Amino acid sequence: MREEPHPVTPDEITAAARKSFDGAPDRRLRFLLQQLVDHLHAYVREVGLTRDEWEAAVGFLTDTGRTCTGSRQEFILLSDTLGLSMLVDALQHPVPPGATESTVLGPFHVEGSPLRPMWSSTVEKEGSGEPALVTGTVRGTEGRPVEGALVDVWQNAANQLYAVQDPGQPPENLRGVFKTGADGAFAFWSVRPVDYRIPDDGPVGKMLAATGRHPWRPAHLHVMVSAPGYRTVATHLFDATSAHLDDDAVFGVKPSLVVDFVPHGPEEPGAPEGWNGTWYSVERDVVLVPADD
Amino acid sequence: MREEPHPVTPDEITAAARKSFDGAPDRRLRFLLQQLVDHLHAYVREVGLTRDEWEAAVGFLTDTGRTCTGSRQEFILLSDTLGLSMLVDALQHPVPPGATESTVLGPFHVEGSPLRPMWSSTVEKEGSGEPALVTGTVRGTEGRPVEGALVDVWQNAANQLYAVQDPGQPPENLRGVFKTGADGAFAFWSVRPVDYRIPDDGPVGKMLAATGRHPWRPAHLHVMVSAPGYRTVATHLFDATSAHLDDDAVFGVKPSLVVDFVPHGPEEPGAPEGWNGTWYSVERDVVLVPADD
Repeated sequence: MREEPHPVTPDEITAAARKSFDGAPDRRLRFLLQQLVDHLHAYVREVGLTRDEWEAAVGFLTDTGRTCTGSRQEFILLSDTLGLSMLVDALQHPVPPGATESTVLGPFHVEGSPLRPMWSSTVEKEGSGEPALVTGTVRGTEGRPVEGALVDVWQNAANQLYAVQDPGQPPENLRGVFKTGADGAFAFWSVRPVDYRIPDDGPVGKMLAATGRHPWRPAHLHVMVSAPGYRTVATHLFDATSAHLDDDAVFGVKPSLVVDFVPHGPEEPGAPEGWNGTWYSVERDVVLVPADD
Repeated sequence: MREEPHPVTPDEITAAARKSFDGAPDRRLRFLLQQLVDHLHAYVREVGLTRDEWEAAVGFLTDTGRTCTGSRQEFILLSDTLGLSMLVDALQHPVPPGATESTVLGPFHVEGSPLRPMWSSTVEKEGSGEPALVTGTVRGTEGRPVEGALVDVWQNAANQLYAVQDPGQPPENLRGVFKTGADGAFAFWSVRPVDYRIPDDGPVGKMLAATGRHPWRPAHLHVMVSAPGYRTVATHLFDATSAHLDDDAVFGVKPSLVVDFVPHGPEEPGAPEGWNGTWYSVERDVVLVPADD
């Protein structure tokens, strides 16, 4: 193989692109980019990517970028639907047995949700869905309750939409942060989440449609728990009755994260005031890994 | 390895993502996406991509998309600077000995340049640079002159900018299409191109800076030639005196594409009217491959 400076054959081009990063001062960045060159070039060769396909890929990425707004992150959707988000998560966050497993953060998390008192509700709009009481305790893997843990929750409404997607909802509807006391316990009212489609009117939706995939995710409540001295966990509570537990469009379901939304009649003790239908309760502890583990 | 539906380990996640495309009706698209999953997942594992690095990558791609406009294509720049554009070109367009080699199209080509008469000039603004006369013949590899070939040319001005980047230039400055007659000959006036930086005020420029790479390309004139019955070739004529022939930021230089801009004094025959300085001439034939080769 000839060396640079005039790469002509595929091997020479790959070697030249790799070598162009030899002088990168940051070792990790150099490694990331040289490996990226190797893997992307290997892909292009192995599939024999044509000029038209290359143009289609450039167009797809450009459209994906154009679809991103302050409240929509199409590249996260792309990463999610290619299984990359779950893979990064799996590599980064192996947890010891008994600890709460993580899953995708998803594109709908909003920083700075309101701090709400325990036993209050995240519901700020009537018609958001069937009431659900969520309770549990934040514990460490060593067994102790965690005081001062922030339990950040967000989810969709009965119309499938998160507040951040839906101008018809108050911006803080169905989201909130709850801070545990000395007993580590949390409790809040919300609604039962529903199965929903990831936003499928953009390039990722087109990719799914073109490949015979559907955009559905199983109903879930997002929970992110952080506490001093512990690793933060971003996870879901999946509804055990969802029809899409087995074919989540973003591969996020883990058996340990599936919970029962236990139905209760309006006459049962604890029923929300003024609600005449079925309501639900979910109980699930969150078990954190000490930061030094 | 367990099968879906609940992938938890990295291997299971990759298998699930791959399998999700099993039902894609288009075989080629299925192959492209399943190989993409394999290669991207292999990359993420091999480098041990962290959550922060994943976030940085999502941010980088989003910024790259936001930088694209009607006249700026940051994803093509990204492909160019990673050597992918030249690799796709090398895989797609191997040409027989004697035929004109191709190189990157680049992000500055504009469809629909004006058809100009032979021997006219593409210069629409004074001060665009030192005059250069470009002549040659379009031939087939079999040796015959090609009649009716469209010679589409574009290049930068003395200020390093292409008209499409520079509101100070008329939009069709330094670009045009010339149609060959029965002799296959072409001839037009332009200016001597200059070394220039690819647009480096966006994410790709940041990537180059962070990795110790420069954004310079060697001076060149773009030529794309198409003719009925022949394969279209998109190529450059590189100035043999450029300081960046050996370190083109996009790996586009091929030895066969380097030409001499021969200097001439204002007193020499053929000098452009009203020009009192040095002018140049370049002679280079374009040899096309029959479409059925």
